[in-house]
Amino acid sequence: MERSDSRLSMGWKPNPSLDLPLYRQIEAYIRQKITTGEWSAGYRLPSQRLWAKSMGVNRSTLVTALDNLAAAGLLEGRHGGGTYISGSGWHGMAHEAMPNWNEAIEEGWYYPNLPEIQQINQAEFRPGIIRLGTGELSPELMPQDAFNDILYSLSHRSRTLNYLEPQGSLELREALSVHLQTTGIQASPDSILIVSGSLQALHLISVGLLPRGSAVLLEKPSYLYSIHAFQSAGLKMSGIPMDNEGVHIARLEDAAQHVKDQDHISLLYTIPSFHNPTGSVMGDHRREELMTTARTLGISILEDAAYSDLWLDKPPPSSLKARDQEGRVLHMGTLSKAVSPGLRLGWLVGPEPVIRRLADIKMQTDYGTSSLAQEAAALWFAEGHHAGHMERLRPELRKRRDFMLDLLRQYFHDIAEWEIPAGGFYIWLQFTVSPLSIRQLFHTCLEQDILIHPGYLYDRLDASHIRLSYAYASPDEMERGLQCLAEAVHRLMDSGS
Amino acid sequence: MERSDSRLSMGWKPNPSLDLPLYRQIEAYIRQKITTGEWSAGYRLPSQRLWAKSMGVNRSTLVTALDNLAAAGLLEGRHGGGTYISGSGWHGMAHEAMPNWNEAIEEGWYYPNLPEIQQINQAEFRPGIIRLGTGELSPELMPQDAFNDILYSLSHRSRTLNYLEPQGSLELREALSVHLQTTGIQASPDSILIVSGSLQALHLISVGLLPRGSAVLLEKPSYLYSIHAFQSAGLKMSGIPMDNEGVHIARLEDAAQHVKDQDHISLLYTIPSFHNPTGSVMGDHRREELMTTARTLGISILEDAAYSDLWLDKPPPSSLKARDQEGRVLHMGTLSKAVSPGLRLGWLVGPEPVIRRLADIKMQTDYGTSSLAQEAAALWFAEGHHAGHMERLRPELRKRRDFMLDLLRQYFHDIAEWEIPAGGFYIWLQFTVSPLSIRQLFHTCLEQDILIHPGYLYDRLDASHIRLSYAYASPDEMERGLQCLAEAVHRLMDSGS
Repeated sequence: MERSDSRLSMGWKPNPSLDLPLYRQIEAYIRQKITTGEWSAGYRLPSQRLWAKSMGVNRSTLVTALDNLAAAGLLEGRHGGGTYISGSGWHGMAHEAMPNWNEAIEEGWYYPNLPEIQQINQAEFRPGIIRLGTGELSPELMPQDAFNDILYSLSHRSRTLNYLEPQGSLELREALSVHLQTTGIQASPDSILIVSGSLQALHLISVGLLPRGSAVLLEKPSYLYSIHAFQSAGLKMSGIPMDNEGVHIARLEDAAQHVKDQDHISLLYTIPSFHNPTGSVMGDHRREELMTTARTLGISILEDAAYSDLWLDKPPPSSLKARDQEGRVLHMGTLSKAVSPGLRLGWLVGPEPVIRRLADIKMQTDYGTSSLAQEAAALWFAEGHHAGHMERLRPELRKRRDFMLDLLRQYFHDIAEWEIPAGGFYIWLQFTVSPLSIRQLFHTCLEQDILIHPGYLYDRLDASHIRLSYAYASPDEMERGLQCLAEAVHRLMDSGS
Repeated sequence: MERSDSRLSMGWKPNPSLDLPLYRQIEAYIRQKITTGEWSAGYRLPSQRLWAKSMGVNRSTLVTALDNLAAAGLLEGRHGGGTYISGSGWHGMAHEAMPNWNEAIEEGWYYPNLPEIQQINQAEFRPGIIRLGTGELSPELMPQDAFNDILYSLSHRSRTLNYLEPQGSLELREALSVHLQTTGIQASPDSILIVSGSLQALHLISVGLLPRGSAVLLEKPSYLYSIHAFQSAGLKMSGIPMDNEGVHIARLEDAAQHVKDQDHISLLYTIPSFHNPTGSVMGDHRREELMTTARTLGISILEDAAYSDLWLDKPPPSSLKARDQEGRVLHMGTLSKAVSPGLRLGWLVGPEPVIRRLADIKMQTDYGTSSLAQEAAALWFAEGHHAGHMERLRPELRKRRDFMLDLLRQYFHDIAEWEIPAGGFYIWLQFTVSPLSIRQLFHTCLEQDILIHPGYLYDRLDASHIRLSYAYASPDEMERGLQCLAEAVHRLMDSGS
């Protein structure tokens, strides 16, 4: 099966109304890519079939263009297949003097995203795609009007366009300190770091607080398995199974003993409220137990509260940070889930020395979060938009959740099982039929412009789940998408794969 | 000499008009810091003298409060001095179960900023400080009105509040493609990556294109020596001396041969126009020579064009990227220097595979640059603000440069030498008197609320330079600051240090 090529998703097309023949236009386009160096030596061209299709030309037209360029020495075939930008022939240079970026790309040590994540990141912007697993609000659920109000207010005040303090704008940290108090968390502005989304907080923690080779404890499955923030920093991950009440305490104790190293701090990453990807909520009793256990074991906790505002039936138990009286818990919050992912605005609460250390590293990576985003966020809280938005959002999100659950009962009752989430975005759908290749299901769906999030992104060994989200797709898309998905499952079952 | 404590710069003060005695208020404040965990076990309190001063109380008042807390077991002294938050005594816990963040902070592998950089980052926000070396525009030179116009426009259009494409907003990349064309650079939107300032581009390149242990060539002195982006990624730096025309080609050849490793790409980082910190401009002929040499040696170039728009006398020669026909040059640009540092908006131009690789890593570190900042930047170019702003900015900056040069002639003619910069922000002031400890000069000035940038931040072995900037301080501050600085130099000379 030929995979789709993400490079073609928004590609250039020749213009049939021009005088120049299509193959000449294609030639000129490729020549320009070469002379600007955008396609440098060793660059592999997209597959002829898919490329011709994406340009809306016959394959023979493309082949004519490529043949001409090959005859001019600009392209070369390689055994093993594929057409590449030639390393020799251009400027008559020796091969070794050409910049070989393809090698460079392989040599940088940062892990690339998992292939599926790369495909998801690209496919999300494909027109017509139905996004069944996307972890963000649908554009029509976003507070567009409130943001226009905020921008209007901002256009009438003066501001600093200069760099801000390392920990972020004091105005915003003060607004957050007040906001956090409403959730039971006492945090002075000095104990708050503004970050460009919680992913950045994870990255800062991974390089700033944990020595290479140390192990991080986390729920299994977990969002954290789907990103490389911690592995790229040389950390190991030790997954703890969950039950209905949250992370399994006895198994946590086993794992903590196992990874315990007297020299190092041990950290547990947890999403206690509306967990990603399972949607589950850690119960009140389990939270108390966890705090006690953490104290006994001497481990610290990184609490990801990304979804805690997004309760649909009733508020979750109070956060771990609200129960913390000794600076054991680092607490991450964000505007990405309930308000606007594009704003890139999050915060980390913790002991002052930790916050200062991470602020110093943040200054070294991006010199602070955009002042415009911080200003908008400060007004978001200070002008009282947040509470009103949440009140409007909840019934809408509840409707979508209930609609998706209806569809699941209709199309999936005989092939899958699920729990009803009390908040957040996600339904952790477990297929009860086997064998079923989730990987194949992902690719089959993608070819039909349906995007799902395979469960193995959140637990490498998982072979039966996908993460659904009722937050993004419209009701109509949900219906078409889930129907297609069910059909794809049945087809794969029939084909025995 | 007791160093200033950056933690006290914006600290809490007891309120004399309350009924509660001051020492009780201080006690309550510290107790709260402890119970919220903001000051966790092992946290070292600020020095009594400086802390009492910053709170505006007698030292004895502070000592009373601390004694009471020590008696309650909440504080402890340590041999070697200093008062710490106690690890035992609180909740009656065993010492080893307390979260020890201080250890954690030392164990994360990311380098902290150099102590002077940390002090600079903090001191910049101290009220009344005179910033003689700051590499950003003074607030009154920033385009406040244009930004209010942009925000007003934005408040009347709809937008996506969702995540954007990995490479950044297409609207902005298209606007940049047009803007770059006016500078002679052909770059399609596909070959542009939006970053949160060029520091982030450096970070992405360091982890995405260069294997650990490989060497980066760079000018000496260089801005790159003042940050840890490359060292934290495990890269070595190999400095090439400069002459009046820019990086010394023969020395570059020597160094390139020396670090050459057939397996790895070699990269030269350069700021050809209005170099940071020297202010020099690489000549046209030297640029041609550099491109030829890079081809011969097979090295790639990272061109930092942060200051190239900021010419004062005449535009610099065309960029290295404009001369590049084979994708050898990665080109970084930013709005931070000429427009707004706080916006955190920059771009990187390069071959498509490089851009895609770095976009993928960027998605893993912060999930893209703030959409609000990208939207504002797109309008900045599309609505034609840039050209008008630069025309207004240049005469203002020229005035400040000339004023600073006048002051230098007045106060420094017998103790220092300098070149006249043709653009950018910086004057690379070389003291001609010796012995003079630049480190001591930095701290002496800081105590008098004058901030200078020591030359050794840009070249570890430098012992005679400081970087001055005419972009930030007001003319009045420049005059007072430079006069004080000259006096401090004379005092240090007299004391023979």
